[in-house]
Amino acid sequence: MSVFNVELKRVVDDSYEIETGSGLTDNLIRDLKAGLVGKLKKFALITDSTVKDLYAAEIFRRMIEAGFSGEMFVFPAGEKSKTRQTKAELEDRMIDAGFKRDCFVLAVGGGVVTDIAGFLAGTYGRGVPFINYATTLLAAADASVGGKTAVDTPVATNLIGLFNQPKKVYIDVACWKTLPGREISSGLAETIKHACLADKEFFEYLESHIEKIMALSDEECEHISAKNCEIKYRVVMKDERESGLREILNLGHTVGRAIETESDYRLLHGEAVAIGLVAECALSVKYGYMSPEESQRVIKLLEKAKLPTKIPSYIDRERLVKKLYTDKKVRDGKLRFVLQKGIGSIVEFESGVYAAAIPEETARDVILAMN
Amino acid sequence: MSVFNVELKRVVDDSYEIETGSGLTDNLIRDLKAGLVGKLKKFALITDSTVKDLYAAEIFRRMIEAGFSGEMFVFPAGEKSKTRQTKAELEDRMIDAGFKRDCFVLAVGGGVVTDIAGFLAGTYGRGVPFINYATTLLAAADASVGGKTAVDTPVATNLIGLFNQPKKVYIDVACWKTLPGREISSGLAETIKHACLADKEFFEYLESHIEKIMALSDEECEHISAKNCEIKYRVVMKDERESGLREILNLGHTVGRAIETESDYRLLHGEAVAIGLVAECALSVKYGYMSPEESQRVIKLLEKAKLPTKIPSYIDRERLVKKLYTDKKVRDGKLRFVLQKGIGSIVEFESGVYAAAIPEETARDVILAMN
Repeated sequence: MSVFNVELKRVVDDSYEIETGSGLTDNLIRDLKAGLVGKLKKFALITDSTVKDLYAAEIFRRMIEAGFSGEMFVFPAGEKSKTRQTKAELEDRMIDAGFKRDCFVLAVGGGVVTDIAGFLAGTYGRGVPFINYATTLLAAADASVGGKTAVDTPVATNLIGLFNQPKKVYIDVACWKTLPGREISSGLAETIKHACLADKEFFEYLESHIEKIMALSDEECEHISAKNCEIKYRVVMKDERESGLREILNLGHTVGRAIETESDYRLLHGEAVAIGLVAECALSVKYGYMSPEESQRVIKLLEKAKLPTKIPSYIDRERLVKKLYTDKKVRDGKLRFVLQKGIGSIVEFESGVYAAAIPEETARDVILAMN
Repeated sequence: MSVFNVELKRVVDDSYEIETGSGLTDNLIRDLKAGLVGKLKKFALITDSTVKDLYAAEIFRRMIEAGFSGEMFVFPAGEKSKTRQTKAELEDRMIDAGFKRDCFVLAVGGGVVTDIAGFLAGTYGRGVPFINYATTLLAAADASVGGKTAVDTPVATNLIGLFNQPKKVYIDVACWKTLPGREISSGLAETIKHACLADKEFFEYLESHIEKIMALSDEECEHISAKNCEIKYRVVMKDERESGLREILNLGHTVGRAIETESDYRLLHGEAVAIGLVAECALSVKYGYMSPEESQRVIKLLEKAKLPTKIPSYIDRERLVKKLYTDKKVRDGKLRFVLQKGIGSIVEFESGVYAAAIPEETARDVILAMN
């Protein structure tokens, strides 16, 4: 018998910049020429069928014009595309087009695009660099910091994926202007979540500026984009692997993700999260961590952002309760929830523990009351 | 416009042990109880249909007996199973069986098992710990150090995967005794490759001990297992991301992988690599880096290890030349080869560059001559 030690301790630097602004293609090209991905010249632009015509085709054209070589790979828009199958099809098309590991991935789109493209980049040739060009508020709020990439399976959302950090994120608020109102609202759900869990002042800012934000005023959009990054960063930095603190970003997501799946994606992610936030406010009130008035303020803000706050009648309540058990936070067969403490803070159940086991009956009661 | 800096510089420690010996289940259980994967008690044992009955079922039984809870997930043995499809099926079965991210993966088997299981573990719940219990010489030689995991696509081998380090590797030489002779030989191809590229003394050891090794004498088996680790480690340590030095491990693999695919996996990986080594020796001789006598010594050792040294007649030579372009080392559309320098060393073309562009015509000439 012999033992051989493989020493693999080293310093890893995955630092990157998030640039927010209006119209950022020039900056992207400037950064690439300055060596953002080293000497790589070949890129795979990954986008969806909606974003292609709106922005991606033009960015692609500009990249080619600037001397890069690449191809555009387009998949059908929508959360239903966020599958292993879509990833495999994109990979096969890249292989057919002669892409080796000497390329980089440029994701242009919303959360689904950045999720798939980031995951794909992490496993293509065992990892090629990728850049996120985020065109939606949701991508800005959700996918810009943290390096979480994933796809869904028929029964579990976001369970298969990777932590993979982009080389840079561009948040182009000009793109928000073509988003349907529902998408803006959906993105705002994550923004409101961030305020709920970490920043009372920002929550008040949202209360007083929600109309300007909904009207896509540049100044307010840049502000909430920066705030999203800042709050998420504060949380993620302290806990890159989501073992403890990072779980607080799951506020509203335990019920939210289950509703999203049970709605068969008739609800957008943020819409489902909004309902999830209301459910988890109800739990917080029940356990005395929040006053009914504070809960009402959250509901009111969600309503002002034109988000649903009730569970749609077409969702079977018992199936929904059962679906909660597919949540990644489930441990030893027990449901675990992140709970809001007043506004702008989170319950720390014990030192470093931000998700608590809650009996199925209590969760069911809350869900049944949400009509 | 605003820029936000995400600082993600940190120390990562992926160090692990490789334990070589005869019969290591007790040691595995001892290590798990001592906290090898923290407090995790739930495991997914991943194995193939051959190894299941030979070893995995017994290891599984012992693990359950020792107080761990888990399930065994079996896929059909063979390189043809090394696909995204197999990975997805295993994932779906794990999800159905209620596996969340609070589990670890125990891979029991050869290179295909450790490749799939390591890749799966790296993306299940965005990464759960995994342990390799290697039952073949090839897994010991190839998959034990370096953290390379991958699957094949219909047209490209090992292109989709991850760098993912195991928590520990067990190399159980007792398992080699049930390996078919072809598998032993196939594993020896990687061992011979290691000697060729890094260790003349070890090459001479192989020349003089090949019969004892082929007879699976414990002492010699443990020695070559340790040597495999040591050589691969020396190379990998200097270059964890395969940008430069690590490419030398591709010796014999440029032609080898293409032959493996073109044979439609009638040839085992090591058999294909053996033929690839001969092809790349011929190139080395052509460019004056090796004498014809040295090349003959390599061929002789491969023959003693009962490995093929000629390209089978059923392989179409032109298709093979074309297939070379799917190699991951191809850059700017040019074939690149790693070349052996004498015995026990590698050509460094310029500082830090270990793979050189070689004209397609030269590669074709060598391939056409190998009848």
